[in-house]
Amino acid sequence: MDAGRRRVVIEGIAPQVDGGRWAVKRVQGDTVVVEANVFGDGHDEVRCVLLYRHQQAEHWSQLPLEPLGNDRWRASFTVVELGTYQYTVCGWIDHFSTWRHDFEKRVAAGGDLSIDLAIGARLIEEAADRAGPSVNAVRLSELAAILAGSQDISARARAAVDAELAALMQKYPDLRLSTTYEPELRLTVDRPLARSSAWYELFPRSTSPVAGRHGTFADCEARLPYVAEMGFDILYLPPIHPIGTAFRKGKNNAPSAQSGDVGSPWAIGVRDGGHKAIHRELGTIKDFRRLLAAAKSYGIELALDLAYQCSPDHPYAAEHPEWFLRRPDGTIQYAENPPKKYQDIYPFYFESQAWRPLWEELKSVVLFWVGEGVRIFRVDNPHTKPFSFWEWLIDDVRRRYPDVLFLAEAFTRPKIMYRLAKLGFTQSYTYFSWRNTRQEITEYFTELTQPELRDIFRPNLWPNTPDILSEYLQTGGRGAFVTRLVLAATLGANYGIYGPAFELCEARPIQPGSEEYLNSEKYELRTWPIDRPDSLRELIGQLNRIRRSNPALRSDANIEFHPVENDAQQLLCYSKRTDDFGNRIVVVVNLDPHGPQAGMVHLQLDRLGIPADQPYQMHDLLADKAYVWRGNQGYVQLAPGVVDSHVFRIHRWLRTEGGSEIFEP
Amino acid sequence: MDAGRRRVVIEGIAPQVDGGRWAVKRVQGDTVVVEANVFGDGHDEVRCVLLYRHQQAEHWSQLPLEPLGNDRWRASFTVVELGTYQYTVCGWIDHFSTWRHDFEKRVAAGGDLSIDLAIGARLIEEAADRAGPSVNAVRLSELAAILAGSQDISARARAAVDAELAALMQKYPDLRLSTTYEPELRLTVDRPLARSSAWYELFPRSTSPVAGRHGTFADCEARLPYVAEMGFDILYLPPIHPIGTAFRKGKNNAPSAQSGDVGSPWAIGVRDGGHKAIHRELGTIKDFRRLLAAAKSYGIELALDLAYQCSPDHPYAAEHPEWFLRRPDGTIQYAENPPKKYQDIYPFYFESQAWRPLWEELKSVVLFWVGEGVRIFRVDNPHTKPFSFWEWLIDDVRRRYPDVLFLAEAFTRPKIMYRLAKLGFTQSYTYFSWRNTRQEITEYFTELTQPELRDIFRPNLWPNTPDILSEYLQTGGRGAFVTRLVLAATLGANYGIYGPAFELCEARPIQPGSEEYLNSEKYELRTWPIDRPDSLRELIGQLNRIRRSNPALRSDANIEFHPVENDAQQLLCYSKRTDDFGNRIVVVVNLDPHGPQAGMVHLQLDRLGIPADQPYQMHDLLADKAYVWRGNQGYVQLAPGVVDSHVFRIHRWLRTEGGSEIFEP
Repeated sequence: MDAGRRRVVIEGIAPQVDGGRWAVKRVQGDTVVVEANVFGDGHDEVRCVLLYRHQQAEHWSQLPLEPLGNDRWRASFTVVELGTYQYTVCGWIDHFSTWRHDFEKRVAAGGDLSIDLAIGARLIEEAADRAGPSVNAVRLSELAAILAGSQDISARARAAVDAELAALMQKYPDLRLSTTYEPELRLTVDRPLARSSAWYELFPRSTSPVAGRHGTFADCEARLPYVAEMGFDILYLPPIHPIGTAFRKGKNNAPSAQSGDVGSPWAIGVRDGGHKAIHRELGTIKDFRRLLAAAKSYGIELALDLAYQCSPDHPYAAEHPEWFLRRPDGTIQYAENPPKKYQDIYPFYFESQAWRPLWEELKSVVLFWVGEGVRIFRVDNPHTKPFSFWEWLIDDVRRRYPDVLFLAEAFTRPKIMYRLAKLGFTQSYTYFSWRNTRQEITEYFTELTQPELRDIFRPNLWPNTPDILSEYLQTGGRGAFVTRLVLAATLGANYGIYGPAFELCEARPIQPGSEEYLNSEKYELRTWPIDRPDSLRELIGQLNRIRRSNPALRSDANIEFHPVENDAQQLLCYSKRTDDFGNRIVVVVNLDPHGPQAGMVHLQLDRLGIPADQPYQMHDLLADKAYVWRGNQGYVQLAPGVVDSHVFRIHRWLRTEGGSEIFEP
Repeated sequence: MDAGRRRVVIEGIAPQVDGGRWAVKRVQGDTVVVEANVFGDGHDEVRCVLLYRHQQAEHWSQLPLEPLGNDRWRASFTVVELGTYQYTVCGWIDHFSTWRHDFEKRVAAGGDLSIDLAIGARLIEEAADRAGPSVNAVRLSELAAILAGSQDISARARAAVDAELAALMQKYPDLRLSTTYEPELRLTVDRPLARSSAWYELFPRSTSPVAGRHGTFADCEARLPYVAEMGFDILYLPPIHPIGTAFRKGKNNAPSAQSGDVGSPWAIGVRDGGHKAIHRELGTIKDFRRLLAAAKSYGIELALDLAYQCSPDHPYAAEHPEWFLRRPDGTIQYAENPPKKYQDIYPFYFESQAWRPLWEELKSVVLFWVGEGVRIFRVDNPHTKPFSFWEWLIDDVRRRYPDVLFLAEAFTRPKIMYRLAKLGFTQSYTYFSWRNTRQEITEYFTELTQPELRDIFRPNLWPNTPDILSEYLQTGGRGAFVTRLVLAATLGANYGIYGPAFELCEARPIQPGSEEYLNSEKYELRTWPIDRPDSLRELIGQLNRIRRSNPALRSDANIEFHPVENDAQQLLCYSKRTDDFGNRIVVVVNLDPHGPQAGMVHLQLDRLGIPADQPYQMHDLLADKAYVWRGNQGYVQLAPGVVDSHVFRIHRWLRTEGGSEIFEP
C-alpha cells in the first residue's frame, strides 16, 4: 500500500451536486468546464489531468488541467454522446519539472552542477524505462547520458533545460504515487431538446372539427399543420389509454357521470386494457403510429402522459391485488384527500411486499411506448411515488434509451421538486404559473439559476395547464395572456401552453376562486374555434421563430434582471445572452394587463458585454423596429393591445462610416 | 431487501464540510444544532430523529427533530465529552399520525367511519406488537379494541384522536421502512482552550537574567509570574532539543558559526539525542517536568514545537538513512530553496518506501511528550509534510488523548491552510500579521467566518513571531504595537505574541525590506529588559483580563463589521457577541499609528440585539469610562499614546427610575 506516499490532494471539483451524489445535466455539444483544487505538500510542482469517459467507453480520455492560480485548475471537454459520463481528476508531483525549475535557479546562481545533473539524469532514465521499447525511450536514454556524461558542463546544462526534453518528460510522467479523486462524478447528457423546447398540450378527443363527435388520432393528425405553424417542438397528449367506467366523473367533475359522459383520461384502464392500450375511440395502435410519423414529418415529437394510477376497472386491480392497499373490508383503497374521495382512482401501494414486480411492470409501460417510438414522457404527479422508484426507473430506461426525456409534473414543495430533478427528471414544471409580480419573478428565477440548482433543475414554464387557470389569466383579459406568453417563451428555455384554450384566451373558471376551467376538457369533449381572428396563434408563431433564431433564449444560463424606474413596479426587464456574448436578448414586459406603463430602463451593460461608451442598436424583434441607444438608459412605454412587450436583440456598434453607425449584423 | 419500500429521503444535513469528508469542530459544552431536509413522497406525515453518539459509546442517543417548515428540520444536543462524535438523521413515514390527521377531517366531513376506525385499530395493534410484553402494549391493545369495538361511533371516534393514544403511538414507531442518512457525519470535540487561548512565545535560552549566560528551564520558571501576570494561557517554547553542530548557522543567520554561537533550535539533533531529548544547556528532563508543573500552578500550559526535520548530527541520519533522500554522490539531500541551501537541515523523505516506520517514529515523538504531560503542540511547517501523514497522526493521537491540541504553523496558500484545518489541526496561524488596512481586515475575517470554513478553521492571530517582524511594526512605533495587540486580542478568540520582543516593541529588522529581526534569538542569546517602563505588559494584562470576563471575545462566531465615517479609512469598528446576546463587545481601533483619527461610528444595532429606540451604555473597558449612546451613531476620536483604542462593552437599557436610566449590569 502506497497510500501514505501519495502527496497530492484533490478537492472542490466543480460541477458537482450534493458532494457527487447526483449526476449534473448537460446536452450534446456542450463544453463541460471542470475545475478542481489540486495541490501537494511542500514546494514541489504538481500536475493533473481530467479523466472522463462515456459510460460505454472502455478507456478514460484525459486532458491536462491548466492552473488558474491559487491552486485552482481547469479543463474542459465537449460531450457528444447521449448518456452518462464519468469524470474525475488525477494529480501527481512532477519531480522532473520541479528539478528543472530548481536547476535553472542553480545555473543562475553559479556553483557546481554535476550532482544536480546526475539527479536529472536519473529522473530521465526512469522516464525512459516507463516509455518502454520505443524511439522516445531511446532518445530519453541519450539525453540522460548527455546530462550524466563528460561533455563540458555548460553543454550538459543546456541539454537539461532543453524544450525537447521537457516535452518528452511530460509524455511519461511517474504516476505510481498519483492521487485520483473519489468518488467518480457523473454527468448525464441529453438531447438539446432537453435544454430548450416549446410544448403544446391538447386533448386529442377535442380535435374533431364536428362538435360533439369524439376526436381521433386522425383528427389530431389534421391539427398538426396548425401546431407546426405555431412553431412547437413537442405535442403532448394527456393519457390516450382506455378510460374506466367505475365511479366515472361527469362533466365539470360531477360525482357521477351521465350517459355519454366521456370521463377523465387519467382514470386509466378498462377490463381489457390499461397503460399499454389505446382508448378505442381515439383509434388503434396503427393510427397512433401514423400520428407519430406524421408529427415527425412536421418536426414535432409526441409526448405521452405517464400517470401511474388505475381506474377500478384496470386489469391490474384484478390480476395484481397485491399492488394495491386493501382496506379492512377487503376493498381496494381508492385515492383520497380527506374529505375528498376519488373513487375512480386506485393509487399503487408502493410499500407493498411485491414492490419489485410492481416496479418492473411500471417500467415495462415506459419501454412499451419507447418501443413504439415515443421518447418524451410527461410524468403525472411523480411526487406521490417513491423517489427511489423514479431514480431506478429513469436510470434504467436512459441506460438503454438515453434519448428519452421525462418532464416532472410535481406542483409541490420546492425541496421535493428539486429532489426529483436531482434523481433524474429531465425537466420540471415550476411555480411560474403563480409568479406574477416583478419581485416574485425576479426572486424565483434568481433562485432557480443558483450554482448547484441550475446544474440539475431545468424549469419548464406553463402559463396554463388543464388544471391551472390562474387568477391572473381569469381577470386580465387578452393582455394577461400575451404577457404570460411572452414571459414563458423568453424567461424559460423550456415552456409550454395548454391549447387551444390558451391561444383562444379561455378564461372562465368553474366558479370564482377556483383554478379549474368551466366545462373542462378533463371531463368532456370540446370543439375549439381555432380560426377565430383574435387567436394568439400568430404571436405564438412569432415568438417560437424568435426563439429558434436566438440561441440566448434557448438556454437558462446568463439571465440578468435590470432595474426599471416605474412606480407601479409593473415593468419587468431581463436579459439573456449566450456564453460568448454572440447573441443578446433584452425583454421588457408590462405586467399590468389593464393599462399602459412607462419608465426608464437601466441596463447593466457590463453584464451584456456592451461598452458603456459606445452606442448599440436595440432591435425589437416583435415589432421589427430598431432603435439606437446611448448609455445605459432607455425609455420604454408599453400598453396592452398596442405594444404589449419588447423583445430586443442587441447589436453592438462596430464602426462609424461616412457618418453612419454600423452595428453587428 | 426493502430498499425500494423506504419512502423518506434525507439530504442537506448541516453542519457538514465537503459532503461529510471532514469532522466539524466544537468544544466541550457546545450546543450542536443539526438541521436536515427530511421528506417523503405523497402527503403522508414524516417523523425523524437525530442520532448521535460519542465514538466510545455503544449505543446511539436520539432526539426528535422539530419541523422548521419547508421540509427543514432541527434538533440540538450538547457535547460534553472530548473526542469524536458521530451523528446522522433517521426518518420514516408516520402512518398513524397520517391516519389520525385524515381521520379528524373525515369526522368533520361526516359519513361512515367504521372502516376508517378499523384501519386505525390495525395500526394500533401493530404498535402493541412492537411494544412487546409491557403495560403499554396492553393499553394499546385495549385502545385498538375500543376503536374496532361496538361502542357507539362517536365514543370510538373520540378514543381514536385521544392524546394518550397519540403519545403512546409515538413511542413505538414502525421503523422497518425507515431511512438513515449515510455516511454518518463526524464532529470532534476539543477542550474550550481550542476555541479561545492567549499564547506567549519565548526562547527559554534567553530567560537568563545574566547577559551572555545561557538561559535554563529554571530561569524560565522564574519568568512564569511575569507571563502569568500578563494573563496568558499557553507558554510556547521553540524546540528544546539538542542543537546540531554540523553546518550550524552563526549570529544573524551567518553561513557559518563562530565559536560560542548557539545555533538555531530548529536544527534538531546531536549524536546522542534528537526529538525526544533535551538540549543540555536548558536542563534535564527533570527540570522540564518541574517547569511544566510550575507553569500549571500558574494556570499556564506549555506548548512544544513539533519541527519534523533533523540536523545532520541527528541519530536518525545515521540509524535510518532510508528516511532521507540520498543524492547520487551518496550524501543526504539537505533542505534547499534554490539558490539558498540549508545544509544544517535534513528534511524527511516522505516518499520513502520506509514511510510506515517513519510515520510511526514521528508519532512516537508526540506520544513521548504527551507521556511527559504536554498536551499542546505548535507544528512547524506542517504544509511541507504530506496531508495524509497529519490526518493519520492527529487522528491517532487524539483517539488516545483527545485533549491534545495542534496549532498549524503553515504560512502558505489559503487552500493548503484550510486543508490542514480540515484534516485535524486544532488552530491555525493566519495572514493576520500582514492584514493592516480596514478593507484587508474586513475581507479576511469575513472570509474566515463563512459557513463551512468556520466549522473547521480556528484562526490564531499573531502580530509578530520570531520569523515575522512586519513592516507595519517596523515603521509604526509603539502605536503600531498597541494597535496590532488590540486587534489580535479582540478580533481573534485565539491569539499570541512572541515576547519579550513584542511587549518591548522590538522593531529593528536585520536589513531594510526584511521581516527578520536584527540579532534574532533564532541564532543567539538575548537578554531582555522586561522591566522597562515603556513595556506593554500592563496593557496586555488588561486585554487578557477583558477577554476572560467577556465570553464574546472568546469565540469567533458573530463577528460584525460596522461602518465608520472616516475619510482616511483608518478607523475600524467591529463587534462580537455571544449567541444569546448576553455579552456584546464593540471595538474601535485606530489603524494609523502616526496620528489621531476621528469619525462617526454607525452601529448596526439589529445585529447587536439593541432596540433602535432605546439608549444603551457603552462602557470602555480599557479606560473604564461609560457613555450613554442614543441611536446608532457615536463620535469617536482616537490618538496613539492618548486613547489608542476603545473596547466597549454594551449594556442594554432596562428601565428609567426616578429620572435615571438603568442599564443591564
